[in-house]
Amino acid sequence: MKEELETYLYQHIPITQAMGIQVKQISKEKVILSAPFANNINHKRTVFGGSLHAVATLACWSLLYVNLKELKTLPFQIVITKSEVDYQAPVDSDFEAECRFPEEKEWQRFIKMLYLKGKARISLSAQIDHQGRVAVDYQGVFAAIFVDSST
Amino acid sequence: MKEELETYLYQHIPITQAMGIQVKQISKEKVILSAPFANNINHKRTVFGGSLHAVATLACWSLLYVNLKELKTLPFQIVITKSEVDYQAPVDSDFEAECRFPEEKEWQRFIKMLYLKGKARISLSAQIDHQGRVAVDYQGVFAAIFVDSST
Repeated sequence: MKEELETYLYQHIPITQAMGIQVKQISKEKVILSAPFANNINHKRTVFGGSLHAVATLACWSLLYVNLKELKTLPFQIVITKSEVDYQAPVDSDFEAECRFPEEKEWQRFIKMLYLKGKARISLSAQIDHQGRVAVDYQGVFAAIFVDSST
Repeated sequence: MKEELETYLYQHIPITQAMGIQVKQISKEKVILSAPFANNINHKRTVFGGSLHAVATLACWSLLYVNLKELKTLPFQIVITKSEVDYQAPVDSDFEAECRFPEEKEWQRFIKMLYLKGKARISLSAQIDHQGRVAVDYQGVFAAIFVDSST
């Protein structure tokens, strides 16, 4: 599944290749994406905030994708509708964004709404740790929509 | 100033070159950065949310940079501390992020605090329009800090 997702990202979102994003871990419970420092450096020799945000976004997107695929229902689309990032400390090394499966209750609410309405929203969070503490705290709201053909 | 900023971005934040970011307009009042569709496309054949966020971030950063440079005071650093994005509609073309100078009162508060404390925060917003409406509404909180050597 790791290689499949990586290939998918590189083919369909080419900027992920320039960012050097790699899939470190992927399961229904947890997604970890990594990216190298060099590709994402900024003028202060720390990681560009835009790259931190992008990798966190894709970690959440991937977790949602894996879990929706697993349901084997109708083809679906995932759209990001909002994001919020707290940059709590600079990152000056290769980095990883980790997204974990949300609260079961929240997931059940989301799935129920998706079946009822054909679309639903869910909030997912991702963290980037650096030197033993959270450096980037990310929250994204994603909409899932059942569609006619898989995308 | 356009070429200077573009060169600066490409040299110091290499991912901006992969994104194809160009400086369309830059003044103390307004910064417009553009990016081509092809470099930033995603699996839905719309612009990747991470790229929309990154270009909006850099438009705000650039506006702050130009205005702080103009003050000709101490060397300074700019750090992003928070961002919030509303993705209101998909973008499926080349796009531009525009950041305008904030309320004069807000700017004066920021500058006063910067002189008093050597650091201060300001909220800046950027928009990306598509087909005559706002498609992406971005807000970022940036901290400026006086430092020993210019960065």
